[in-house]
Amino acid sequence: MNVLVIGANGQIGHRLVRLLKQEGQHEVKAMVRKSEQEEELRAAGIETVLANLEDRVEALAEAMKGSEAIVFAAGSGGSTGADKTLLIDLDGAVKTMEAAERAGVKRYVMVSAMQAHNRDNWAEAIKPYYAAKHYADRMLESTGLDYTIVRPGGLKNEPGTGRISAAENLEPGSVSRDDVAAVIAALLEDRNTYRRAFDLTSGDTPIGEAFGA
Amino acid sequence: MNVLVIGANGQIGHRLVRLLKQEGQHEVKAMVRKSEQEEELRAAGIETVLANLEDRVEALAEAMKGSEAIVFAAGSGGSTGADKTLLIDLDGAVKTMEAAERAGVKRYVMVSAMQAHNRDNWAEAIKPYYAAKHYADRMLESTGLDYTIVRPGGLKNEPGTGRISAAENLEPGSVSRDDVAAVIAALLEDRNTYRRAFDLTSGDTPIGEAFGA
Repeated sequence: MNVLVIGANGQIGHRLVRLLKQEGQHEVKAMVRKSEQEEELRAAGIETVLANLEDRVEALAEAMKGSEAIVFAAGSGGSTGADKTLLIDLDGAVKTMEAAERAGVKRYVMVSAMQAHNRDNWAEAIKPYYAAKHYADRMLESTGLDYTIVRPGGLKNEPGTGRISAAENLEPGSVSRDDVAAVIAALLEDRNTYRRAFDLTSGDTPIGEAFGA
Repeated sequence: MNVLVIGANGQIGHRLVRLLKQEGQHEVKAMVRKSEQEEELRAAGIETVLANLEDRVEALAEAMKGSEAIVFAAGSGGSTGADKTLLIDLDGAVKTMEAAERAGVKRYVMVSAMQAHNRDNWAEAIKPYYAAKHYADRMLESTGLDYTIVRPGGLKNEPGTGRISAAENLEPGSVSRDDVAAVIAALLEDRNTYRRAFDLTSGDTPIGEAFGA
């Protein structure tokens, strides 16, 4: 598949585009916001496209031309305020869903946050972030896209183990960003994961066996 | 009808509960966040219920018991940040929709903002607010509730004229808060307004004639 990774400069996106390139099963394109960010990606042999999540839907659809799958791995990050959380993590995300529909892209993988579907478990300190992710996910579920919503636990930079737990509801836990990227790569073409959402932590199940029928 | 006004201490809610009380066609109850706010309302002969939009859906459903219509006139206001915009204007609003469904309330009137449905017309300075209202409205449209979404233009404290314009898309304009309250009172039982959304500004049409078949 032709896979467009949105937020390819982020910590998960960075790993994912390199993993997909290395695996060689898919054509990968990295969507980034600044031209400076394109250079490093191109040096690694990764095709890029410039677009901003604050752009109009039409511009985002244009950036998606030729893609068959979208991975939304972008985020406004902790250094900006809740205003950007609303405009990037929520509205920016939903605009990419509308753009995907407009561009005829069917497959859409969302990187969400553990228990984003369950208000009772939103960490008090970052409740507004959870709210934004919650509604982005609900909007995605209301589309006709072949979505998968991946809700990782606390993100770690430790090397991946290739073993995870994935289920609709998991106890609090953490997961390596390497493993999140590996899970996304593994499920891109896995129809068992279409129109499903799950929490993700480190665990005992080999990634390749986690989503089988 | 038994009408519960959420945000009865706000500028539109304040006018609406008094107007409904004065007209005497409906039983009105005011939902407010602080017990201090109850006193003034009770002095005006208005029944009150205490609840907080940051409460759980179950608590909000409890506050709605016996109601037949909800008016959402609450807002986090300009003095708090976008974090509260996410938690009140968006998540708080959607929780009241879920609570209404849980409590068996069918009628739901949302006070939104002019052109909230149209990203291209969001005022740059308060884009995050528009985003929150946009998604609250879209979530409402996805429910089975008999909703009406009222999207007033720039709100003024001038006395109402009783004459308005209402249409799916209006040119930028303003409207008296008195007239917004009068419009809500007029459409509560008007089935022509069910499952519809419209911009609202001052205009030439008498409120009583604005929504007829």
